Amino acid sequence: MPTYDEYVRRMQRIADIRYAAAVLQWDQETYLPPKGAHYRGQQLSSLSEMAHEAFTADDMGQLLRELLADATLSDTARRNVELTLEDYTKSRRYSASLVRRLCEASNRSFHSWIEARRQNDFRVFEKDLAALVELKKEEASILGDFAHPYDALLNEYEKGATVAQLDVVFGELLPRLKGLLSEILAKDPGDDRILKQHFAADAQWQWGLELIHDLGFDEAAGRQDRSEHPFTTSFSAQDVRITTRIDEGDLGNMGWSTIHEVGHALYEQGLPADQYGLPLGEAASLSIHESQSRLWENNVGRSRAFCRFVLPQLQRYFPDQLGHADAEVLFRAVNKVAPSLIRTEADEVTYHFHVFIRYELEKSLLEGRLSVRDIPGFWKEQYEKWLGITPPDDKQGALQDVHWSHGSFGYFPTYSLGSLYAAQFFSVAEAALPGLEENIAHGETGPLLAWLRENVHAHGRRFTSDELCRRISAQSLSSDYFIRYIRAKYGLDQSA
Amino acid sequence: MPTYDEYVRRMQRIADIRYAAAVLQWDQETYLPPKGAHYRGQQLSSLSEMAHEAFTADDMGQLLRELLADATLSDTARRNVELTLEDYTKSRRYSASLVRRLCEASNRSFHSWIEARRQNDFRVFEKDLAALVELKKEEASILGDFAHPYDALLNEYEKGATVAQLDVVFGELLPRLKGLLSEILAKDPGDDRILKQHFAADAQWQWGLELIHDLGFDEAAGRQDRSEHPFTTSFSAQDVRITTRIDEGDLGNMGWSTIHEVGHALYEQGLPADQYGLPLGEAASLSIHESQSRLWENNVGRSRAFCRFVLPQLQRYFPDQLGHADAEVLFRAVNKVAPSLIRTEADEVTYHFHVFIRYELEKSLLEGRLSVRDIPGFWKEQYEKWLGITPPDDKQGALQDVHWSHGSFGYFPTYSLGSLYAAQFFSVAEAALPGLEENIAHGETGPLLAWLRENVHAHGRRFTSDELCRRISAQSLSSDYFIRYIRAKYGLDQSA
Repeated sequence: MPTYDEYVRRMQRIADIRYAAAVLQWDQETYLPPKGAHYRGQQLSSLSEMAHEAFTADDMGQLLRELLADATLSDTARRNVELTLEDYTKSRRYSASLVRRLCEASNRSFHSWIEARRQNDFRVFEKDLAALVELKKEEASILGDFAHPYDALLNEYEKGATVAQLDVVFGELLPRLKGLLSEILAKDPGDDRILKQHFAADAQWQWGLELIHDLGFDEAAGRQDRSEHPFTTSFSAQDVRITTRIDEGDLGNMGWSTIHEVGHALYEQGLPADQYGLPLGEAASLSIHESQSRLWENNVGRSRAFCRFVLPQLQRYFPDQLGHADAEVLFRAVNKVAPSLIRTEADEVTYHFHVFIRYELEKSLLEGRLSVRDIPGFWKEQYEKWLGITPPDDKQGALQDVHWSHGSFGYFPTYSLGSLYAAQFFSVAEAALPGLEENIAHGETGPLLAWLRENVHAHGRRFTSDELCRRISAQSLSSDYFIRYIRAKYGLDQSA
Repeated sequence: MPTYDEYVRRMQRIADIRYAAAVLQWDQETYLPPKGAHYRGQQLSSLSEMAHEAFTADDMGQLLRELLADATLSDTARRNVELTLEDYTKSRRYSASLVRRLCEASNRSFHSWIEARRQNDFRVFEKDLAALVELKKEEASILGDFAHPYDALLNEYEKGATVAQLDVVFGELLPRLKGLLSEILAKDPGDDRILKQHFAADAQWQWGLELIHDLGFDEAAGRQDRSEHPFTTSFSAQDVRITTRIDEGDLGNMGWSTIHEVGHALYEQGLPADQYGLPLGEAASLSIHESQSRLWENNVGRSRAFCRFVLPQLQRYFPDQLGHADAEVLFRAVNKVAPSLIRTEADEVTYHFHVFIRYELEKSLLEGRLSVRDIPGFWKEQYEKWLGITPPDDKQGALQDVHWSHGSFGYFPTYSLGSLYAAQFFSVAEAALPGLEENIAHGETGPLLAWLRENVHAHGRRFTSDELCRRISAQSLSSDYFIRYIRAKYGLDQSA
């Protein structure tokens, strides 16, 4: 009879390889000298192959099944083994050949995406992307029986997510958002000029460090560095790295993307450290991860209360630029709404149109209703339909995101789900924590963090997104919370 | 019949794991947050176990032997496979149990060394060090037939090094150095007060970056960071990392240790990049590695010519402190000679007494003539004998170096061999490169680097230290070169 300890040892050894790869990736994004890229790529491939080999070994399946037959296993141990068996079963569906072909196709696509952006011409990307889409269809077909081929890919990022569910979510959300958008634009779309002055990089960096400290980031268990695109990664719950980028012409860029990454990082630092390498030491799902980043960035960070807290801090760093501003000016600046072309720069309201368009597009590609060649036309039509604006070129259109070139299809919807979960969780937290708003206005976010630790972080992957949501709010995901939150923020009538 | 390509693929995959471990170690010394240390240790152990397992697999030996039977193999390919078989044969001698016991004993010793230093009491370190010494004796015994038990350990760091050889080297060197030391102290020991002013850390850092650039370090294939102890590491010939430390009260500390690390780095950057993961892509030996760092630090960096070059640069960064200095003042500062207690701060002349004392001590421990308990007494007696000074406590005595606590016995002699090789190689380079001194005085070290690339770096591990030395200088290692170099530097009569 194998022991649970044996399972833990094996899993931790695999985790050691995966986290080592994560360190190499972090280094790649932060400090790698340019000529180091070639062998770094090879080192990463080797580590990921080794982790895959070790995890999908025949005797791993046997170990897991035998352990599950052990009636003396604790609940926690059983849940770990069950989840590992799920992961194992899924991983075993991938043949070495498919893994290699996906990897090669992604590499090719990534390079042609870079080149296509350079030439600002989607057609340069077309052939490699089309080959990748065919491979993703093959991948979807081997992943088991799903009602819709896209479901298989969605499921890779968000267990249980389906086209049927997402069609309902977006079907409810989008028409209401379209109405909201008109109301906000008519009433007061905000004004962010105060954030578009010159803000010296050093002072931004120093403010950022103060900010992440104030939000509860544990600097002894993590650090911040700079990279081209902000991200969060972790090598254990006790070593969580975030990155930021600084635009001297836009304070909001660094500030609120830092808060976003801190939200991710607080989740990682709050995962049970003693479950290192095991499912219960991992995040519940991508959408729940995104709920944490968005809750801190938006529900906390773009609130009136937070603006009251952070403005005096900002005035210390930038007396000339912000000395005369008041909290309401800052609030209107960080909540400016305007239809725009670039997803990552979109406001909270229009953001979901960007996600929905990509969702529709990916779904149609997988169904075969849309061919890669037709993407730019589809893009133009959808942006005109939902946002009333027309992308002038491919860089500001279908070439803006890196995700497809990495082979990531089915990822975007988790961004919208994250916002909706954030609003739902925050609403419950507000009810559970009297005086929360006043606390935030004084920078006292400790009680909120403790609530999230207890209700979200501590569970790791024990519950699915939906189970977690029902435990927290006694119902499944509902866009009502998000709509109410937006209406309240923009001072719109809640009965409408 | 296995193919050479198969061998290369296997070797590169093992290299990928080892270099990944090197990235994790680099991060540990530069950026790791304190709480990350625990799982980082585990990640490093897993990677090193995996690399060892993959390298010592049964079928690896078979592959190597079969390849050597292939008469069509090119010389380069054959040399790689021969050297790999040597490494393989050695690695296979280590049982999993011995590897684990060595690793555990080192971990324990490292912690008790830290604690012993904190308490400034060698006795705290004694028990764990004694256990480690017993293990090193066991290690020496499994490594094959050697004339002296210490030879086995020396050989781990320097192929072919023996007590018989080192006794001759030190036997010739030390009495001559003792004479030289008296002559120098009587004539002019130098004066380094000019380097002991306040030098702001930022300006030192900026100067350091300019300096490494001027010396030919390729910043696109490496970078510099800060760490507690300066070191060089590499993850391929195209990603070589150096670190430095800054002491605001001592400019020489940062400056010349940076040049030292650049010397190591230039070697790594000059190794054949297409031999990644193979012996011919590795350094010849530790002593040859050290010859490169010392050649740049001392033969170049502490020369009159280099002082003429670097002083105006330094005066730009530190006009107040150095504005009135001349090159001779700088030369006398960076070449000050004085018996001292701490090896890493020793000058070029007294340095070798420090190494010799550790060599004698290790040799005696391995022979069983000395017991661990007697180390502090032996230390005191030897420092009095050779340097005429008495360590006031253990921190400035036998607890100063970290090496033993890592289980590194047999490493120190490579430091002295490196200095001797450096002097020998530099003397040949001077003859081969007319105008070298004038070039250095103008910061034009390109011709010297090209010469080292061709004569040392490009060969990788193709030749042993001795073979390389004979190719370069038509004779084996001789301390005559070093003695002549020192006599010339300090203006002493060469006929003495």
